[in-house]
Order: sequence, then C-alpha cells, then structure tokens
Amino acid sequence: MTRRHGDKSSRASASSRPPGAPITLLTDFGTADYFVAAVKGVILSARPAVVIVDITHEIPPQDVEAAAFTLLCAYQSFPAGTINLAVVDPGVGSARRALLIEAGARFFVGPDNGIFSFVCEREESPGLTWKAFQLTNTKYFRWPTSATFHGRDVFAPVAAALAQGVTATELGTAITGIVRLPSLEPLVSRGDKITGRVLHIDRFGNCVTNLTADVLTADLIAGGVKLKIRRRLISSFRSHFAEETVSGGQLFAVWGSAGFLEIAVKNGSAAKVLHAKRGDQVWVLKG
Amino acid sequence: MTRRHGDKSSRASASSRPPGAPITLLTDFGTADYFVAAVKGVILSARPAVVIVDITHEIPPQDVEAAAFTLLCAYQSFPAGTINLAVVDPGVGSARRALLIEAGARFFVGPDNGIFSFVCEREESPGLTWKAFQLTNTKYFRWPTSATFHGRDVFAPVAAALAQGVTATELGTAITGIVRLPSLEPLVSRGDKITGRVLHIDRFGNCVTNLTADVLTADLIAGGVKLKIRRRLISSFRSHFAEETVSGGQLFAVWGSAGFLEIAVKNGSAAKVLHAKRGDQVWVLKG
Amino acid sequence: MTRRHGDKSSRASASSRPPGAPITLLTDFGTADYFVAAVKGVILSARPAVVIVDITHEIPPQDVEAAAFTLLCAYQSFPAGTINLAVVDPGVGSARRALLIEAGARFFVGPDNGIFSFVCEREESPGLTWKAFQLTNTKYFRWPTSATFHGRDVFAPVAAALAQGVTATELGTAITGIVRLPSLEPLVSRGDKITGRVLHIDRFGNCVTNLTADVLTADLIAGGVKLKIRRRLISSFRSHFAEETVSGGQLFAVWGSAGFLEIAVKNGSAAKVLHAKRGDQVWVLKG
Repeated sequence: MTRRHGDKSSRASASSRPPGAPITLLTDFGTADYFVAAVKGVILSARPAVVIVDITHEIPPQDVEAAAFTLLCAYQSFPAGTINLAVVDPGVGSARRALLIEAGARFFVGPDNGIFSFVCEREESPGLTWKAFQLTNTKYFRWPTSATFHGRDVFAPVAAALAQGVTATELGTAITGIVRLPSLEPLVSRGDKITGRVLHIDRFGNCVTNLTADVLTADLIAGGVKLKIRRRLISSFRSHFAEETVSGGQLFAVWGSAGFLEIAVKNGSAAKVLHAKRGDQVWVLKG
Repeated sequence: MTRRHGDKSSRASASSRPPGAPITLLTDFGTADYFVAAVKGVILSARPAVVIVDITHEIPPQDVEAAAFTLLCAYQSFPAGTINLAVVDPGVGSARRALLIEAGARFFVGPDNGIFSFVCEREESPGLTWKAFQLTNTKYFRWPTSATFHGRDVFAPVAAALAQGVTATELGTAITGIVRLPSLEPLVSRGDKITGRVLHIDRFGNCVTNLTADVLTADLIAGGVKLKIRRRLISSFRSHFAEETVSGGQLFAVWGSAGFLEIAVKNGSAAKVLHAKRGDQVWVLKG
Repeated sequence: MTRRHGDKSSRASASSRPPGAPITLLTDFGTADYFVAAVKGVILSARPAVVIVDITHEIPPQDVEAAAFTLLCAYQSFPAGTINLAVVDPGVGSARRALLIEAGARFFVGPDNGIFSFVCEREESPGLTWKAFQLTNTKYFRWPTSATFHGRDVFAPVAAALAQGVTATELGTAITGIVRLPSLEPLVSRGDKITGRVLHIDRFGNCVTNLTADVLTADLIAGGVKLKIRRRLISSFRSHFAEETVSGGQLFAVWGSAGFLEIAVKNGSAAKVLHAKRGDQVWVLKG
C-alpha cells in the first residue's frame, strides 16, 4: 500500500515549513459549545491569515484511540508543513505532558496520552523518523493559563507560534518516549496465522479493520482466504461498495480509502448486521 | 419570484472565472470521520489560498434528492465563479459517470446521479443554459485513485484544477444527457388543478413545498385558496413566522426564503403536527 | 477574574477596525440545511477574502439565552475588530429591531431580543461602555429582503458592509435601551447570602454556574464553603477535572475556562448525576 507510507513530497524536513500551510483541529469538544471557537479565536488573534481546517470535533468524549485513528487517516492529505492540533485530553491540568511532534513533514501539537501514537507508528517505518518535544516554554502559552482548557491556553498559542516560525527547540525540550497505544499491526503468529481487529466503525456502518495489503496480500486473497468476525464468515472480496454482483444484505470485504480492509454491506450498515464494535477480532482463515 | 432565477450578475460566463471565488462542499460524509478533512486537504495541497465553505455534510446517507434540494437553495447566494463540489455517491466505483457542469456562472463537480438535477432545471429557464462534461482526463485525478472515495481522489483534485484555471474541455468531454430526478414543478392539470409535494423538512419542522409564486399566484391566494395536506386544510397565508395574529399550534403557509411555499406552526414543528414527510402531496383547493 | 474583563488590547476603539479581523457566526440554524451556507455566500460575495468562523450553529432552536451565554464565552478570544453575527431570531419578520452593537472593541450584529445581553452586561463594568444602533438603512440589506430569513438578507450584508469599512452611523441610528435578559450576577442578599444558578450545561455534562471569583472569593472557599444544588451538598473544590485525589462519581467544583464555577464529576456527567438543568439554583453555604 503506497498510501500507508505517504508521498515523497511529504518527506521534506518539517523545519523548512512552507508559508500558507494550514492548521487542522481534531477534538472531542463537539460543536455546540464555545470551545472550538475559543481555540480558533486565539489562533486568529496571533495569525489572522492562517487557514484553519476542522478535521472533526465529534470524537466521542475522551476517546483517545478514536482520535488517534482519525488523525492517522487524515494527516497525509494535507500539505507538508501542516500543523495538526489534536486535543482529546482527559488528563488536562494533571501531570500529563504537552507535546509537539515533528513527523512526516508535518507538526502535531497536543497532550501526551497516545493521541499521536498511530501517526508515529506509521512514521517510524524504515527510512522514516519522528521527533518529540515537551512543551515547556510557558512564554508561548496564553496567560492566565487555565487548568481546564489547554486547547485554548497552551496548544492553540503554540500552534500559532509554530505558524509564525518559532522553532521546536524554542517551544520545548526534546524527549524520547511518548505514551503509545497498542500497535496498529495485526498479530501474525507462527504458522502465519493472522488476527486483526476492528479499528473504527464509520458513519456508513463500514467496519474498518487493521488488515493491510502488506499482511493480507493479493496472493492470499487469490488463494481463497476467508474472514471470520463475530461468528460470521466472509468470503467475498470486492473492489467497491456499489459492485453490481453484490446482493443486498451480503457482507463483503473491500479495500477502504485509508488503506485498511473494510467489512461492508451494500446500501446498509455492516456494523448493524454484525453487531460489531471497535476492538472486535477478525480472523483470517486460509483457503 | 425573482429569486428563482438569480441575479443578473450571475449570468456572466463561467469560463471567465473570477479569482478568489470559493469552493463549496456538500456531502453525506457526516463530520465525525476523516472524509471531509481528506477532501479539504487535497484541495489545499493544490490551492493553499482557496476559500472552502461547507454547505452541509449532514445529507442523510445516500439521499441524492436531499442533496439536490439543498444545493438548489444554496448556490445562488455564492459569487459567480464558485465551484460547488457535491458528493452523495452511492454508486462510487461503479460505472456511473463523474461530471462537471457549468450553469448559472458557477461550476458543479460530482457524480452523475441526479444531484445536479434541480440546479439544471432552474438554469434551463428561458434564456438560460447549462453545459455538462464527463470527467475523463485521469491526469487530473489523485493517484492512486481509490475505488471507494472519489470525493478525495477525483472530485477534489478536479475542483482544485478548476480553481487553478484548467478548463472544462481539458478536464473532460462534453456530453448532453445527465441523470435527472423528477421535476421540481407542481402538477397543473386541465382545469388548472394544482398538486404540489413536500420537497424538504427543515430543522425547525417547516414543510417546504414545491409551490412557487409562479403557480400559486397572488391572485389565487387573494381569491381564497386553501391547501390540503395529510387530511388537514390550511387557509391561513402569513408573511412571516412570528406574525402576531397567528395563534400557537395553528398551521399556516408562508413564502419561505428559498422561494417555495412552506407550511409552518408558530414556535413549533409543522412536520410533527402533520406527521409529514418528504414526498407528501399538497393539493391546492380554489375558493 | 482578569478573564472576565478582557485583555487591555481589546479596549481599543472599535471604530478603527483592523483589516483582516474575522466575522463569526452564531445561530440556531443547525448544519443540515442550506441556511448557514446562504449567510456565508452573501458575505463572501461582498468580501471574498474575509475569514468566517463558526462559533456554533447548534443553539437549541429559538433559545436566545443559550446563544447569549455562548457568545459571552467566545467573543474575547477573537481579535479586536471582529464582527460577531448572532442570529437566534424567533421574532424574524415582526417588529423586533435589528441591531448593531459596538462593545469591547468588537462589533455585534443581530436581532434585539437579548442575544447581546450578557456581552453588554460585561462591557458596562466600570470604565467600559458600549453603543447600540438600530439597523435602519435598508440600502445595505439584500434585495428582495425576505420576511423569514434576516440572517441572509439583513445581518449578513450588514456584516459584510462593516468589514468593508461602512460605519455604524451609516448603517443605522443610535439607540439607548435594548432588550435585556435577567442579569448574570448571582443574588447577594443582606447577610451576604449568595444564590447562584446554572447558566449552561456543556457537552461533558459540566454544570456551569454564574458564580465568579468576585463573589465566591478565595477567602470564602478557604473558609470551608459548601454548595447546595438539587438537594446535594458539594464541599470539594478542585483545580482541574483530572485531579488525582478525586474519586470517580464524586461531585466537585472547579473554576471553568470561562471564569465561572463549574460542578463536575471525574470522567462523567455531573448533569446526569444531579438531574440538573439550566436555571437550577445553587446555594452557597458558609462554613
């Protein structure tokens, strides 16, 4: 999957940030309260011309894993130099660290709770690397800094400072370990037994698994592999959701737009048919 | 209704696209997943300074008619040269065509499934015209082009190319017929019997019909016309929602902001009172 | 609370509006219909380069008090010169006045129904002032002006005109009294008995009260004050939501990011625990 590793242009150094790259926002703030607006106001007060793009604010409250997955799927579509602000932050005000990460020619700003875990996992593939900094320079924070809203008071002003050309080493201190979530990789046991899991269920009810074409190869599929999930067997691999030969209600597998295998139903919700939820295991049974 | 036909300024040729016109987005992607962000990222990667405006991403999944109606109501508020990206695309990956339409001095990009039907119907009023192109030049697509996400991989890069000045004939091939939905027009039978239908139910529960002032004239209303919908008779025509002489709970008709007659209840939901849904018939009974 | 009164930079005169300040939108339109897009289209038709920021469109239909509160919490994060368009307008089309307010170096445009009440209350603190104008110059309205959608036809074009440099006195006529909601201030009776109320319940279930540090002073809290709400006593005052010493399910009070005391539960919804709703009284019981 070339998509898993990004395009070459994104390999440029993040340090030479192109002017005009946007700032993205990813939070669990919802869109009914004033929280998102406050973050944008702080950024625009410092950088009136910067383009701000919402990835989503509908992450379920405090669901760090959902945020990490959504960020993983979105960040490579944005240009090099993009600053990604991701705030799902159940530990706000506690001792959890505030982070800046440089990875894949982009910047990532948010709490150290695993939210950047999947991006870092992708960006440590052979030949790639990433760097982490703890945001320690309070000079760049909003003052007074509340204990409850670091999105507005820490991460937004730091993102604006980055957009202004302030460097990572001015903003904080290089660190090595960051909080990591369980790996994205499927389990491959001796005997090549592959066990995946459901990473995400999307708006259409498609079940996005962590199976990629690196593991579930075209050869394996051609050899007649089956998937097992929640006691159901799936043997149909299709090229798109609307395929004419798929009958209504039939479960099938399809390579999704984020590079992961998805389990779907034509014009329906596979998650409902399967009563599936995130974390459900998916076994690959060889033909 | 002058509003039905747009202002004169919008009659300029779409070919001479003014710089700075925005790109609008209309989808059924929802705002919880990474889909909308991916579309925006692709556009901003090619055109960092373009203004992107969300019309909505809350179209019910795969509801092409709702998308067509919403686009109809929105597009004339935007400046000439605006590029409207509309993706409600149950047939993604199948043989359905990808379209570019030039109409009303604006551009429209999306699947050929009826989503541009109502805009084209309005723009073929006497003296107006529109042109359709099938997007065949894969050079302008994102590569690799997924089979499941043409919003990101086909329509977004084409919209960015349009914003960059690429012409319709470079992007594709002129075609004549496109997929059309049932007409917006009310039925007018011999004897001038008028039968309309509910096109849309809005957030406030107002029932937007397809009756316009061209058909349901001021003379007819002055003559004491009644409306019949779901066994209820409505004889009250009002000028606005808050009219002082309307009592709570009373159904009344009012000319809505999109040029269509709406059925409403003061401080309440007409749709709930009537148990109305899209497609319900509305009979015009003369006095 | 310094945050209650804004930073010094925001005290500059609104008349000398800095170029590039954004226009914010706050409505009860929802995001599923074409309404928000129509407002943006009208603004961008007049001012193609202006930055438009959504505060929220999820105000409950016709809930002026919720809109007033959300605007209060958001406006000081935006730069001086920001134009705030706020449209929750149950009286649209009736005799209610259309307003422009200059306050706190920002502009506010919307109906005269109390929506700017809390901003004005804050901006009449000692040394501050605000000015109100009735929008009477129909030359700046969209034509034809519908009776049902002043967001698009009155307030959007007026906001665009303001962004273009048109002055308040060109747009309307200075007035003195505007519609006011009940004050934000807690009741302080003889004997210093303090009674507050719940102003807002946020996405996380935190109950935002109208108690501020001006009234509920650090000395009082140090003296062992308790809060009583819906027959429950709260004696725990904390510095942030994730505090390690708070056990799950325990109600506690914390200074929220908008400068108000909030009642919260660690990793849960205080509103659910308390069955609380906006308007509920909060008694301060001294130790």
